[in-house]
Amino acid sequence: MSLIRSWVESANDPECDFPLNNLPYGVFDAGQGPRMGVAIGAFVLDVVQVDHGLDPSLFAAPSWNAVMAAGPEVWAALRARLTELLAGEAHRTAVEPHLVPLETVQMRMPFAVTEYTDFYASKNHAVNVGTMFRGAENALPPNWLSIPIGYNGRASSVVVSGTPVQRPLGQLKAPDQDLPVFAPCQRFDLELEMGAIVGQPSSGMVSVAEADDMIFGYVLLNDWSARDIQAWEYQPLGPFQAKATATTISPWIVTKAALEPFRRPTPERERPLLPYLAEPGPMLYDIDLSVGLAPEGKAETVIARTNYTHMYYSAAQQLCHHTTSGCPMRVGDLLGSGTISGTTPDSRGSLLELSWGGKEPLTLDTGEPRSFLEDGDRLTLYGAAKGDGYRIGFGACSGTVRPAAAAELPTA
Amino acid sequence: MSLIRSWVESANDPECDFPLNNLPYGVFDAGQGPRMGVAIGAFVLDVVQVDHGLDPSLFAAPSWNAVMAAGPEVWAALRARLTELLAGEAHRTAVEPHLVPLETVQMRMPFAVTEYTDFYASKNHAVNVGTMFRGAENALPPNWLSIPIGYNGRASSVVVSGTPVQRPLGQLKAPDQDLPVFAPCQRFDLELEMGAIVGQPSSGMVSVAEADDMIFGYVLLNDWSARDIQAWEYQPLGPFQAKATATTISPWIVTKAALEPFRRPTPERERPLLPYLAEPGPMLYDIDLSVGLAPEGKAETVIARTNYTHMYYSAAQQLCHHTTSGCPMRVGDLLGSGTISGTTPDSRGSLLELSWGGKEPLTLDTGEPRSFLEDGDRLTLYGAAKGDGYRIGFGACSGTVRPAAAAELPTA
Repeated sequence: MSLIRSWVESANDPECDFPLNNLPYGVFDAGQGPRMGVAIGAFVLDVVQVDHGLDPSLFAAPSWNAVMAAGPEVWAALRARLTELLAGEAHRTAVEPHLVPLETVQMRMPFAVTEYTDFYASKNHAVNVGTMFRGAENALPPNWLSIPIGYNGRASSVVVSGTPVQRPLGQLKAPDQDLPVFAPCQRFDLELEMGAIVGQPSSGMVSVAEADDMIFGYVLLNDWSARDIQAWEYQPLGPFQAKATATTISPWIVTKAALEPFRRPTPERERPLLPYLAEPGPMLYDIDLSVGLAPEGKAETVIARTNYTHMYYSAAQQLCHHTTSGCPMRVGDLLGSGTISGTTPDSRGSLLELSWGGKEPLTLDTGEPRSFLEDGDRLTLYGAAKGDGYRIGFGACSGTVRPAAAAELPTA
Repeated sequence: MSLIRSWVESANDPECDFPLNNLPYGVFDAGQGPRMGVAIGAFVLDVVQVDHGLDPSLFAAPSWNAVMAAGPEVWAALRARLTELLAGEAHRTAVEPHLVPLETVQMRMPFAVTEYTDFYASKNHAVNVGTMFRGAENALPPNWLSIPIGYNGRASSVVVSGTPVQRPLGQLKAPDQDLPVFAPCQRFDLELEMGAIVGQPSSGMVSVAEADDMIFGYVLLNDWSARDIQAWEYQPLGPFQAKATATTISPWIVTKAALEPFRRPTPERERPLLPYLAEPGPMLYDIDLSVGLAPEGKAETVIARTNYTHMYYSAAQQLCHHTTSGCPMRVGDLLGSGTISGTTPDSRGSLLELSWGGKEPLTLDTGEPRSFLEDGDRLTLYGAAKGDGYRIGFGACSGTVRPAAAAELPTA
């Protein structure tokens, strides 16, 4: 597949994140409140203002949930119509007045997150973390090669790129102490992930193929993690407050349709999967990912580069597994892939791994050492699938760490 | 406190769950679709039809979320007005036509569950389960006496009493097998809990006192649990599909106001709590609880009796802890207390404990043995706070187990 040309010239630049092949969906605010938009080149199209051909009620709320709920035929119709409007010079006069320069807008949450589930499905990440905590011989839990392990996260804490993230307070217990203290997190971390957005509901169990059909699109996702809070709280029922401070997503929903040319298979299995998890076709995507860290007032260092194909389980497999117990899925559910780490030290998707539990601090290009995040650090995820003369970009997924709340804690 | 008399005579019966002191909120359907109602005696009051004195928009949707969001002053005003209408003979003529016999209505979900969190906060339960899995000396996890341990559950699977519950499918691995199979759960269980409903939102950390103010009311809650799915999946990130089949709640929200006379303190601490978890007053309630199990077509046996005061942490402490990381709480969030077990063998709130992991099956009054739930079993929770000549009842929290889906599983 090659570039589809648009009369929006900036969309034809091979380095542009938003060519006509992409058409990602977001919610923007240019000073008149939140509106539904589509990114094209250096602009966002105020989609409600153009002859999109769909029921206007789908655009009544500033969120993409109603379009998602309308189903795959509507998804295809909207994409076809937008392509027509932005490719054909004939429509330029009618459409061009509704293009707003991206640099003048604030992005908002593109959809209302119904429920949020986070997985643990990159084998390199699981082996790295397991090796640190349990030694190389017991790195992978016994169930890992059979189950796309996941846990329920907190939808209320999902925020859009650009939202500041306050360092959490919590119970911390040092290994040499008997009792915990209540204090600001000292090992605040990122997790580089992709998020899959459920666009159709289910009741009862669905197959992997049906699950893939239910997915509307993907975002970049940073699951901020308080490693010290997690270490003390997570046995026996899993991470809770360690993961509830914030989860940042990129502002543009990149549709499954835009990613079609980049489908790739999951890896060979070391242990046969149970039949219900078999995939009918390739369900991962070739998406280059990177992480940038900029200390306050300083330049950014790229601290990791990896690719979405380093997953052991696809989002479709995760979603299928999520329904096995009869769990109903709803429009707007968000599934985090789990931290995506490659095989090399510089392809690890968390500081926990990059600094090997803090024992091997990174040195940023600007000279600072980093084991975990410092106040003022700006953390940004980047992602793009790269085609022939074009790229399907996600836009930046960014957040800056603010200091913890004052030590005078509320008490009874 | 003693009975407040109503002109609805059935409400003055000392054995009635719904005297004027109670006034619980639900959503009923008498054949004209779902409507907001208040239980009084043997009736439900169609509250929209009476002169309730509040903004009608609070009653626009058939759910109590808008009233909750309106805040404590509205909560108090509505309770005062309903008491006036149902106590004073002067209002009888206007109000009586809007009483619908309870036996003629179907109950619906009383509120939309925003997010669902489940805790693990009865010490007897934690010790029982820990003893079975890790031995008596390591029964309590090291963090248990410091943290009200919780995990995020799945709001989409919360259902109202009366909804059938289908036995889940899932990955099961027998201790003597190397690999799992995909099959119907064989150790399907109940968990006797109370649910606290968050009626006001928060951003940032709140104190225990503020948390108590945010709670609107309580329901009975059965957190159906697939013990065999849980055993294989739960390491390292906690229970997931084992808890996602269904969580059943009782249909009436019993308000905090109705429960005021029954406040009781949490127990003495074996290890001092961190100051943020200290309680400014008694925050548990003296509520008698019981569990009934009826095999298909047979009479019910009461298999457990316990009391809500057997909790180590109150809902207010749990809600405070939930906010420590900055996690925003929203109107309609539901917090499960965790399984409530007393100190005696017949006061345990799960079959896992009652049958001691299946090793000591119960014998029902009708002669059947039970280690875990069988298809066709109807499981019902009951609860009431008992005052001087009256009771604050919750109504039954019931569900019947249906067979698992056919073994022909969807595959790719």
